[in-house]
Amino acid sequence: MDFSNYLKHITQLVDDYLKQYFPPKSEQSGLIWTAMEYSLFAGGKRLRPILAILANQVVGGDLAAALPVACALEFIHTYSLIHDDLPAMDNDDYRRGKLTNHKVYGEAIAILAGDGLLTHAFYLLSDGLENLLPPAEIVRIIKEIALAAGPLGMVGGQVADLLAEGHSSSGEQLEYIYNRKTGALIKAAIRAGALSGGCNQEQLEVLTTYAEKIGLSFQIIDDILDLIGDEDKIGKRVGSDLKNNKLTYPNLYGLDFSRKKAQQLVDEAKKEIFALFGDKCEYLLALADYILNRDR
Amino acid sequence: MDFSNYLKHITQLVDDYLKQYFPPKSEQSGLIWTAMEYSLFAGGKRLRPILAILANQVVGGDLAAALPVACALEFIHTYSLIHDDLPAMDNDDYRRGKLTNHKVYGEAIAILAGDGLLTHAFYLLSDGLENLLPPAEIVRIIKEIALAAGPLGMVGGQVADLLAEGHSSSGEQLEYIYNRKTGALIKAAIRAGALSGGCNQEQLEVLTTYAEKIGLSFQIIDDILDLIGDEDKIGKRVGSDLKNNKLTYPNLYGLDFSRKKAQQLVDEAKKEIFALFGDKCEYLLALADYILNRDR
Repeated sequence: MDFSNYLKHITQLVDDYLKQYFPPKSEQSGLIWTAMEYSLFAGGKRLRPILAILANQVVGGDLAAALPVACALEFIHTYSLIHDDLPAMDNDDYRRGKLTNHKVYGEAIAILAGDGLLTHAFYLLSDGLENLLPPAEIVRIIKEIALAAGPLGMVGGQVADLLAEGHSSSGEQLEYIYNRKTGALIKAAIRAGALSGGCNQEQLEVLTTYAEKIGLSFQIIDDILDLIGDEDKIGKRVGSDLKNNKLTYPNLYGLDFSRKKAQQLVDEAKKEIFALFGDKCEYLLALADYILNRDR
Repeated sequence: MDFSNYLKHITQLVDDYLKQYFPPKSEQSGLIWTAMEYSLFAGGKRLRPILAILANQVVGGDLAAALPVACALEFIHTYSLIHDDLPAMDNDDYRRGKLTNHKVYGEAIAILAGDGLLTHAFYLLSDGLENLLPPAEIVRIIKEIALAAGPLGMVGGQVADLLAEGHSSSGEQLEYIYNRKTGALIKAAIRAGALSGGCNQEQLEVLTTYAEKIGLSFQIIDDILDLIGDEDKIGKRVGSDLKNNKLTYPNLYGLDFSRKKAQQLVDEAKKEIFALFGDKCEYLLALADYILNRDR
């Protein structure tokens, strides 16, 4: 199967699995599920689920055990977008060409939809992995993901990002924010996926390096797209980072250097995994290129 | 040790344990931890930790395994209060006589402090219980707590509560909200505490009934205190439920009936556990009375 068909295939698997964790709607509880569903199925790239599944597969794992991990990560990613878009945060009206959650359901429900997705992610991990992995591995995966998503990871990165806005900025600060705000969950996706596949320590380490490099590359490209991307393809206003005086890679190092850096990181990431996995990591190589060359 | 000294003793244990999960503050990550800490140490009653510890102890459990459970529950309870108080939700300026989180740190940080506490709770469970309980029990406890806190529990109850405001209301709706908004986490505290103590099925069932009854009683008393309580003791404005046209027990059934109901539930809860545990459940009996007779 070529890469783009493979992506469609696993995206469909992920979507089907996600829906399993949505109960039939009753009158009193319907709205929270509707609001959660709205953002979950608002056209995301499913990057974190794909990373988790590819890592599981490259170490020869059972796909069934990758799905709960993949979907929990997408729950967490989606919650973070809903909260990021809130008026008190980035105050965005559109994401992926659609109205943001609070523009449709109001602020209170949007906050709760985020809370619901985050909490339900841990239910999904503890429930969905039962009987598929040894309990000790389930605990390890939950710990990995909670650490990456929490105040030492994504939440901490978001705070640092808020504090950096409008202030003089350094490369060190930028690295701190990148590593946590987006990098931590991308790394957790790869690592938790690999753990769900029963990886050994060497595989885990090499995949971690790959994740760090493509994670950084992903964010540089994101910042470049915000600067010069096509609004129709991205689905939200471009130039908002500049307007908000955000600390970004191209703002700090210029566009040319940023492009070269993104390319270099992807090259290194590919080299690293090819050395260990050889032809078995075909899709992970293609994914690295996709991250570099995407236009949305 | 008499009950009030025992409460002081375990509250101190809980506070000490909570602090363990706060890392040394660096310049860039300091604010999120400060904001989380502010609400966590703002004078809460520590009811959920106490319930978890008492349940662990009454089944003869190891106190060390109750502490991570107790503290994770307090993290989750605290996050829910921070988000409830936000301008988009209940818009409260004070809680327990102190400024609410967003009044001190701003809305963005308050949202993130809540997110951080919720996520860190699951880190604390997966990290803190390691080597203290069999991994399968850890997974079971995480599942229990995630289910109770998420869209099928606390978050769902909060949404139903928001939707009920200002609308004609029924006893059925009120029960739905009570069971989820506060009842679910109180029940999870008792159940997860008992599981951390290695309880058997009969003990779990009896403690669950106890939790359901004191949970409902707790909420009736909360509503009564909001109606006729002493503002200085409660630490926030009274009468806000009435003002917000909230669906409450006394609003629906009157003050007299509500008081009788709260008393009846506590009597039943006590009878239930005494029949199984006898003199060993002294503190759980005292706690039920404390819930009924408290003035804050």
